[in-house]
This record gives sequence, structure tokens and C-alpha cells, in this order.
Amino acid sequence: MKVGIINVTGYAGMELARILLRHPEAEITSITGRSMAGKDIGEVFPHLAELDMTITEDITESVDVVFSALPHAASAKRLAPLIREGVKAVDISADFRLKDLDEYEAWYGTAHPCPELLEEAVYGLPELHRNEIEQTSIVGNPGCYPSASILALAPALKAGIIEPDIIIDAKSGVSGAGRGFSLNTHYSEVNESVKAYGVDGHRHLPEIAQELSLISSNGKVNLTFMPHLIPMTRGIFASCYAPLKEGAISSGEDAIDEVKELYNEFYKNEPFANVVTAPPATKHTLGNNDCVIYPTVDTRTNRLMVFSCLDNLVKGAAGQAVQNMNLMFDLPEDEGLRHVALYP
Amino acid sequence: MKVGIINVTGYAGMELARILLRHPEAEITSITGRSMAGKDIGEVFPHLAELDMTITEDITESVDVVFSALPHAASAKRLAPLIREGVKAVDISADFRLKDLDEYEAWYGTAHPCPELLEEAVYGLPELHRNEIEQTSIVGNPGCYPSASILALAPALKAGIIEPDIIIDAKSGVSGAGRGFSLNTHYSEVNESVKAYGVDGHRHLPEIAQELSLISSNGKVNLTFMPHLIPMTRGIFASCYAPLKEGAISSGEDAIDEVKELYNEFYKNEPFANVVTAPPATKHTLGNNDCVIYPTVDTRTNRLMVFSCLDNLVKGAAGQAVQNMNLMFDLPEDEGLRHVALYP
Amino acid sequence: MKVGIINVTGYAGMELARILLRHPEAEITSITGRSMAGKDIGEVFPHLAELDMTITEDITESVDVVFSALPHAASAKRLAPLIREGVKAVDISADFRLKDLDEYEAWYGTAHPCPELLEEAVYGLPELHRNEIEQTSIVGNPGCYPSASILALAPALKAGIIEPDIIIDAKSGVSGAGRGFSLNTHYSEVNESVKAYGVDGHRHLPEIAQELSLISSNGKVNLTFMPHLIPMTRGIFASCYAPLKEGAISSGEDAIDEVKELYNEFYKNEPFANVVTAPPATKHTLGNNDCVIYPTVDTRTNRLMVFSCLDNLVKGAAGQAVQNMNLMFDLPEDEGLRHVALYP
Amino acid sequence: MKVGIINVTGYAGMELARILLRHPEAEITSITGRSMAGKDIGEVFPHLAELDMTITEDITESVDVVFSALPHAASAKRLAPLIREGVKAVDISADFRLKDLDEYEAWYGTAHPCPELLEEAVYGLPELHRNEIEQTSIVGNPGCYPSASILALAPALKAGIIEPDIIIDAKSGVSGAGRGFSLNTHYSEVNESVKAYGVDGHRHLPEIAQELSLISSNGKVNLTFMPHLIPMTRGIFASCYAPLKEGAISSGEDAIDEVKELYNEFYKNEPFANVVTAPPATKHTLGNNDCVIYPTVDTRTNRLMVFSCLDNLVKGAAGQAVQNMNLMFDLPEDEGLRHVALYP
Repeated sequence: MKVGIINVTGYAGMELARILLRHPEAEITSITGRSMAGKDIGEVFPHLAELDMTITEDITESVDVVFSALPHAASAKRLAPLIREGVKAVDISADFRLKDLDEYEAWYGTAHPCPELLEEAVYGLPELHRNEIEQTSIVGNPGCYPSASILALAPALKAGIIEPDIIIDAKSGVSGAGRGFSLNTHYSEVNESVKAYGVDGHRHLPEIAQELSLISSNGKVNLTFMPHLIPMTRGIFASCYAPLKEGAISSGEDAIDEVKELYNEFYKNEPFANVVTAPPATKHTLGNNDCVIYPTVDTRTNRLMVFSCLDNLVKGAAGQAVQNMNLMFDLPEDEGLRHVALYP
Repeated sequence: MKVGIINVTGYAGMELARILLRHPEAEITSITGRSMAGKDIGEVFPHLAELDMTITEDITESVDVVFSALPHAASAKRLAPLIREGVKAVDISADFRLKDLDEYEAWYGTAHPCPELLEEAVYGLPELHRNEIEQTSIVGNPGCYPSASILALAPALKAGIIEPDIIIDAKSGVSGAGRGFSLNTHYSEVNESVKAYGVDGHRHLPEIAQELSLISSNGKVNLTFMPHLIPMTRGIFASCYAPLKEGAISSGEDAIDEVKELYNEFYKNEPFANVVTAPPATKHTLGNNDCVIYPTVDTRTNRLMVFSCLDNLVKGAAGQAVQNMNLMFDLPEDEGLRHVALYP
Repeated sequence: MKVGIINVTGYAGMELARILLRHPEAEITSITGRSMAGKDIGEVFPHLAELDMTITEDITESVDVVFSALPHAASAKRLAPLIREGVKAVDISADFRLKDLDEYEAWYGTAHPCPELLEEAVYGLPELHRNEIEQTSIVGNPGCYPSASILALAPALKAGIIEPDIIIDAKSGVSGAGRGFSLNTHYSEVNESVKAYGVDGHRHLPEIAQELSLISSNGKVNLTFMPHLIPMTRGIFASCYAPLKEGAISSGEDAIDEVKELYNEFYKNEPFANVVTAPPATKHTLGNNDCVIYPTVDTRTNRLMVFSCLDNLVKGAAGQAVQNMNLMFDLPEDEGLRHVALYP
Repeated sequence: MKVGIINVTGYAGMELARILLRHPEAEITSITGRSMAGKDIGEVFPHLAELDMTITEDITESVDVVFSALPHAASAKRLAPLIREGVKAVDISADFRLKDLDEYEAWYGTAHPCPELLEEAVYGLPELHRNEIEQTSIVGNPGCYPSASILALAPALKAGIIEPDIIIDAKSGVSGAGRGFSLNTHYSEVNESVKAYGVDGHRHLPEIAQELSLISSNGKVNLTFMPHLIPMTRGIFASCYAPLKEGAISSGEDAIDEVKELYNEFYKNEPFANVVTAPPATKHTLGNNDCVIYPTVDTRTNRLMVFSCLDNLVKGAAGQAVQNMNLMFDLPEDEGLRHVALYP
């Protein structure tokens, strides 16, 4: 299977290369990157020297599948002709995630480059859309925050045990902001500090709302999503809060047991959604493709609390993208993704 | 003014020494510490060598005021005889914070060593209890999380613009866990990781609930308080969420302006509660005695959101303790506390 | 191949489990740990839950090979009976590294538990002792600092281009100090700080001196080895300095080229000793089994400078141990060790 | 005393503002910064909002003393006219440090903007040039590495107890690289990693060599200076190595005592050069103006080893600049500089 990576020089693209380099069924045959075109990958990323390829401006080989790690708008624009030629595509940008074109244009402030392709596109969260992913040739790979947030809340919303009145307080490492320069990624500014950002509305909000509303058995969700920047490189931790729905579940300690059982049942066959019995830490997911989920109840206030975490570059980006590729090509879903977390 | 510090060898005690060493009206005359008794302070903390004192087991001099940085129960036990002799006391432990003895015993799992002193004790948050602090000889210095949390929510609760249905999602640096050894303070375990802890109930919850209920104009608060451990040394960041009360405030963008004005007015004369116009970061408070507060509204969901931060060892412990001492001795409230943040 | 891990609960033991869990020829059949005996591995290390084994006090199964991650003295004592039963052993402690019993007793302050086994033991640095490792049943796995240091200097010493007057200034992440508690591993003490330690002599000095003297074509080395503690979890960086020997090599820029060629030639067939063309960073080795080496010359002073780095838990401990196991069992040397660095 | 700060928006300039804001004899009356001209300082640095001034393009007030934190060449160019008007100047750039114009042009690759001012300029290390600083109106404030390195070696070189054959292996936090963007200051690249840089020659080398050769009683030094980048914000640690001169000092343990005594004597009256009795950590200098120095001897190899550390933005830049100002204006040398380290 020939694979192309568009924009290998960002963190998501580089992580795709890391994973695909050891994937037994994939062969990376083309890698692109604007500013680094003409250089060998080993000059830019010494840990990938073994790949021994030159970065080009465009996909130079015919490929069976292409991953794009370009920014939004640029991504769909570059993918569209390849898709029309029959190449399967996994887009790590936001271009194929939102079903509502108006939402896309409102949040991203630009017209969609190829709205006609949206209908075929599938939101690439295998735990919720596995069958559709297997059938499609365009996957909109979820954002890092949405992956953690949606998996944390889907079971409760589907079962209707919570009011759809949700607060997600999320914490992210700095690599989520990419390899571009800014004060938000400047070491001395973010080290030894924590802050909220995107206070007026973060672009991952609409895709979380879209997916949670879709699965909710109580209608559209009323969602506050608040991201925070934390001094670490990788990892996302989502703390999710919602009131239990009166009558839909027991109260007190029994509620805790019922919630845990509900989550265990929901994810029992999932290779990468692990419901755990003790509060997790992002370090448990460093470098692997797991989303680790701990549901419980604040019995003082009758609120569901779910804590979930993942590696933003793996299950939150490149790992999930490969998981989607595996499904699209009828390979074992965890092929090339059986990394054990690098702990500590 | 002669000052004693009980348990100078923990982080709060050490920080008291740092601040008091430069306080123009205070003279440190006695410092204690169990395991380090007999050693010079400079052997234990080279940066305090200038203090040039020997650590003793007990307060060896008569002092005008004593600070205790012992753990709960041990602290009140050690302070009681000194208080009875007429020494003024600022207790950094939890022993003089809770008004309800049953709450104390339930959360701390021990009988209170001197319940008869509770009536005189004042909760040492100057922004809410300044007059009482000036009159008392026993101050229960607030915890680090409560300082950030209560200051973030007091104006809104007093004004009655929110439902008393509150979620506080707090993030703390590791020094809040003290100088004692555990996996929670072990570098390789907490570095590059974030987690929730105290999921079943953290001991700072009852004092936050006590103070917020006291000031609330809508009765007792229904509070979820969830602390998280973050890989940094100092700093606490509290993200507070509560639904706006219908009819009590405008909706939409107007609500944001009204909330900001309300907060500005509430804290307009406060030296250490700074309402700011852009989302803050804990780094803005590194080493100073400020609590920085940013109130806003999530206009999509009509929720109040307040973000506050402080240095857990300064405004969250030793700095606030000195602020309380200043008030108890009729000194300028900011005497010895005019540090500029060490940024970056 | 049945494998036992003694003291799986330390960082080296845990890392052995991470690597061996995916090794196609190895099956972990017994894991031990004193304080955690009776617990499931997943309770202690959630990221290893998949291993699904109970920690025991002793090796409970007959095994083909055993790794010990116990402290010195305890390790040899526990290994000796297994070795006598015919089990092959890779010892991560210092017990089988030093050839000179007096040196061992002087540096480790204890008698050797089984000096009669020393003769069979091989110093497990495959790049220097591959043939012996293939023949032996006892490997003394090198320390983390020695692995980086010896590989950095061996080519120059063998070729005789430097005076044997060497300074190694090494920098290590905190995980090298293990999972035990101390101020040296206490987050708030080591974060945002750097210091020298072991100033009077670090225990890794004699094994570096032993190996460098062995390979030196100019006799015994005169070695200063100075370790520093750096605020990061994994990684060792060794900066090595030695005067070029007059007449043994060109001077000026030519010396740089000759040195690089010499190193390239020396390591040309090595899977895990990579000579690179730009100064490396420890991040290039995060989680992989590489030792990355950058040799150059300070032409102002005619000094050889070699910078080398590795992951202290992989090439500096568990990874190298598995590399040794592969050699002892005639497997491909890199079996189970083809991890790509987790960058960034 | 009216003070101007040129380029307040870099880290050194910002740190000058932090210190001078609390200096009892100084009043900041003019602050400049190119890209931020027109903004209030509080918008750029919220922790300095209290200063309540607008950033301008040029010094707008007549001032008694001006500090420049501009890059080299630009700095002297901007200072020259002010100096000619009689303003005293402390230049934090390299423009007034090197005595040899050819060295300046070789290392900085540009002609010096005002060579005629060099003769008056004094190298602003008070411990070595106090009298000259008191007399001059132009101080070239030393670099951060040179401050730590020169203070570490001056006593030994002056006393002639070492061969002038020196290796300085230095480790720096990231703030030393300034507030400008690059991969070297990008969080995800430098966090959890260490590397050597400037391997072909760092610009701080010539000023270290100049000062060490000047004080050496054995002639010009033969110097290898090798800086490393460490994942922390503030702090420099210099590890210095040089062979003891045969016959100039005892050997063995006696050498250690003699070295310590020599250093104690040399710095006995210095307020900011502290010779300590245990190996220090950079954390002991966080936010204060100390250079902490630990001299000892590697008795195995008869090498002097000196470890020194300081806060690169204080004693390594802004604090030392204020110390120089105090001397130039006949104020107490430690005025405004009595900060206690912010530990932990």
C-alpha cells in the first residue's frame, strides 16, 4: 500500500511518518513540505533519517492513500484533485469534520474549497462511525480535544442518563499548538505556567457539539468547552461535567457503579478506548493510541464526571488517522498501532 | 515585632522565612522543625543562610506572633498554649478554618485539639474578613485552592447574579503537595503528565463551600470542586463555572460588561485582588502576593466563567499569612509584600 | 523463550517489561517485586495492564533467561542460584561489571556475594564485546553514563589519537535516579534547576575507566567524570574532552574530517551506535535504543570533543539488556528494539 | 535619578524594569521598544502594569542613566549620542565588552559603530573592575556565561595555582536565548531534551578569554568553552576544569582545603560572589543577584573543578547592570538588589 504524507514537517505529519515507518502494510512513497522541499527528511528530523527520502513540494508518486496535515482550507484544496483521481484520503485538518457548511465558514472564516465532497466525508472517530469509515474514501480525522471529549461523553449521552448541559474543561500540552512559532509555544512563556485560552470560543467546539448532539438521546447539547495550556509537550486531559438526569439512574454510590458498568459495556470491544478503574494520567498514553476514560459521579451534587486522556499526536491525530486507514483498507484495526506507553 | 515560625522546613514555612527576612517591621527570632532540629537554616536551605539561625524543636523565645506551618491537628495542639499566653497566631494548617466542628472531624478524621478556641478564630481572607482579622488574635489562614476559588466567585455570589450551582476545576503546581515524599511529588511520575486527584472529595471543598455559602445571596452553594496536578512547581489556576441567574443580569455581550464592572467595583480598593482585562497565566503571579481574576460570560450557554490564579506559596499560604499579620498589628497591609512577579 | 524479570517495579524493570511485551521471541513468564508482591502489574503500572500478571516475591517459573534490576549486591545474590541452575542472566546492577574485585568493594562498600562468577561475566557493551557476549551466560549490563561515555571515546582511544587525559561532563534526566524517593527526585527540588552531584566520585567512574583503559592504545586513562542532574525525565548527554596527541592526527580543519572518518569507520556496522553529522539532542533518542555520537575538534585548543546521547532507560539499561539477550540467544541483534524516537 | 531603558520588551529589559521599579533611588522615566511602541507596558507584561508607562520608539526624556538591551551594533549606535550628551550608559549588549576591535569584528561580523568610545568603556564585572566602574560613564555589562565563568576561575588564575589550560562546560536555561522565536526556544523542541550548541565557537568565548588572560599570572589562557541548552527557564551553571600547577599547591585532600581558603579570601568582602561549602544548584539563585561558587579538587587527577551558578537574567544581565549603576552613582552596591531566591 503506497502512502503519501502532505506536510510531513509539522508535528502531526512527522508523527504519521514515525508510525507508518513501522506499519507492516504501508510503504511511504511521497512526503511533502513547503519550506523544507528539497531537503532530506533526516536533515529536518534526525530521528526519521532511516526513512531516507527527499521532501517534495507535491505528491510525486501515485499513492493509494494520502494523509494531509496541512492547515484548514489549504488541506481540502490540495486533497480534492487527489480524491477525484481515486486516492483515499485522511485529512487531519478540520476541512472534512463539520457537516454544516455555515458552521464551517463561521468558525474558520473562509469558504470551503470543495463543499461537494462533504457528503461523502465521514467523521473519523472509529468508536462511533466504524462502519461508515470502512465504506468511505474521505475521512475527516477528529481534532485532539474532540477525540478525548466525545469519547468521554458518548456513552452517557446515548444512554440518556445526563442532562445535555455540559462543561468540558480541557488541558493540553504545547505540541497541540504545532511547530509554528508564537508566544504560546515559546519555552520561557509557557514553561512553569498555566492559562485558559480561546476563552471566546475554540474551533474544536462545533465538532464536539455536532458529535455529542448526534448521539444524544436528549437532543442538542448545551456545551461550554474551555481549553487550557499546560507546561508539557504531549497529552490532553479532558474533565467533563454534566448533571445526572433525575430518574434516569440511581443516586448515591449506586450511580457510580451503574455509570461504570454502562461505560464498560459501551467500549467492551474497543481496542483503543479503555475504561479504567482508577483516575488516569496523560503519561499512561504517552506515545500510544489509547484514549483512557474514567467515569464517576460526584455524589454530593449528583453530577457525572468523566476524565479522559490521550496523546494529542497519536489518538488525537496521527495514530487515529492510521486507525482510520486500517479500517478503510480492511486491515486489522490496530495494525502498526500496538505501542506501549513510554512511561515514565 | 518578634516572630516565630513553627515548622520552617516545609515549603510554607520556608516561604514565610523568605518574606519575613525582608519585612521591615518583623524580626524572626525563633524557627522550629522536627527532623532538622539542631541544624543551621543555611544547611537546609542555602538561600536562607543569611538568616543565620539554628532550627530548634520548640519556640525558644517569647514572640509577639507565631506562624504555624505544621499539619492539621498537630498545629492547633502546638499553638494552643502560645495563644493562651497571649501570642497572636496565624495558622497555615486547616485547624482554624472551619466553623462547623462536625465538618472538621468528618473531613480530617480526628477530633479537634482545642475546639474552645474556634469561636475566636477568623477565616483569614482579608478581602472578605478584613475587620474581623484586625480584631482577632487567631487567624485560620485559607488553603491555596480556597483563596483562588473564593475570590473568583465572591462578587458574583454576593450580587446574586448566578445560581449557586458551581463547578471549580482547579490546576495546581506540585509544591502544593509539600516537601514530603510520595509518587505525587516524584519528578519522573508527575513531569510531563496531568491528572485529576482527590476525585472522591478534596479537603479544601468544605472551606470553599463554607465561605461561598456565607457570602451567597441565594443560599447554600451546590459545589463540585475538582483539583488537578500539573507539571510545574508553583501556581494555582482555578476555572470556575456557574449558570447566570435568569433576570438578574443582562444576556449576551452586555452580560460580559456588567460582570466585569461588578468585579472591578467589588475589588477596587484591594491591594492584592487584581481584576484584569485579558485572560491571565499563573506566571503573572510567580513570587508575588496577587490573586489575578478574569471574569467573563460564555454567551452561548449563559454561564459565568471566572479564571483566577495565584502563587500557592504566597497568596495561597505565606504571603497571605503575612498580610494577615500586617492587619492584626495595624501595619500597612502590603508591608513586606510588594514583590514584582518573577517573569518569565 | 521464557523470560523472568526480577524487580519489575523499578524504572529499569518496568522498561524491560515494556520492551519484552512486544519482543516476538520472548515470553515474560515471571515478574518479581518486593513491596508490590501479590499485586497485578496493571495496578502498579496501568500502561502495562495488558501483561496481565501477578507480581511475585521470587521467580516462580523455570525461565531461560532472567533480567535483574535489583540494587547491587542484592542482585548477584539473587541471580547466583539461578545461574548455577543454567539460567542465562543479564544483570542491570553493577555486580558483574567490574573485573577488579577490590575496585568493586572499594566503590560499593560491600563484599561481592559471588566472586567466583566474575570470571565468566562479560561487560555487556555489544559494540566492544559482541563475541564474548554471544558465548557467555552472565552479562553485566553497563550503567547509563558508561554506555554513553565509553561509546563516545572508544574509537579515539583505540586509534591512539588522543592523550589518555579525559574529562567527561555528563548530564542526566531524573529517571536515572530510579523510582525511590529522595530530595534528588522530588519534583519541586529538581525542576527548574541544575546541579553537579557525586562530586567526590560517582560509582560509574571505575567501569568507565576500566573499559577505556582496556581499549586505549596509550595505556590507562586519567579520568575526570562529573555527572549533573537536569530537569527532564529521560536522557543522558555526555560531553567528552581530551587533548589530541601531537603527531597522531592532522591539526586544524583536517583534524575534524579525520576524526569523523575514524568514527564512521569504527561504527559502520553497528545498528545502535549512530555517528551523526550535526550536534544531537537527547530527544533524538527518546524511547529508542540508539547511542547518537557527534565527534569534532576544538581547533582553537586542539582538543577532541565528542558529544553522545542516549535514553538512560533504553540503551542505558533495558534496551541494551535486551540487545545482550538477543546476542546470547543468537537472535537478530535488533529484534524487538526497532523503536523510532518519540519526538517531540 | 532618572533612568531610561532601551528595548524594555526583551527579557533583559523587562527584568531591568522589575528590579528598578523597586529601587529606592531610581525612577524609570522612559522605556523604548520597536515593535511594541505605543502600547502600555501592562499590555505587553501584565506583571509590570504598575509601572503605568507607554513604550516609545526612542528615549523621550532627559535621563541620568540609560540601560540598553538591544542586540549588538544596534546598541552602541543608539547609545553613542546619549553618551556624548553626558548620559551614563550600561550596555547589556556585547558592544563595549571586548578591548580588541579585531576580535569584536571577527566574532560579531560587523564594524563597531563607535570604536572611539571603547577606550572609556569598562568591563562591568564589579568583582574584578570595581574601581574603574566607579569612574567611568560607559559600562559594557558582561554576558551571562562570562559572569559565571570568570568569577569561577579568577581566584585560581590570579593565584597561579592552575595551568591556563581550561575547559568550561556550561549549561543554560532557555531564557538566555531571549524572547525571539526559533526552534531553540520552541517549547516542544527544547523541553525534555539537552544539547550542546555553538560547537564551532560561541560569542561569549572571546570575552571570557580576555578577562581570564588579564587576571592570569601564567599568561594567556587556552580555553574551550562549550555551552549547552537545558530545559528550564532561568539559570546558568558553569562547570570549570583545569589542571593544578605542579608545585603551586599541595596535592590530595590538602589541595581541597587550600583551594577553598583561597576562594574564601578572594571573595570575602563581595556582596554577590558567595563561596559555598556544598555543591550548589541554580535554584539557589532564582531571582537574586548572587553568583554562587563551589571550588574543589578532583584528587584522582589533580584537577581543579569549580562549579558556579547564577540567574542569567539577574547577575547574568539586569541585576549586574543595576549593580554597576549603583557603583557609577556612588550608591550602596546592593541597593535594590537584596532579593532572596525564590526557592523552590
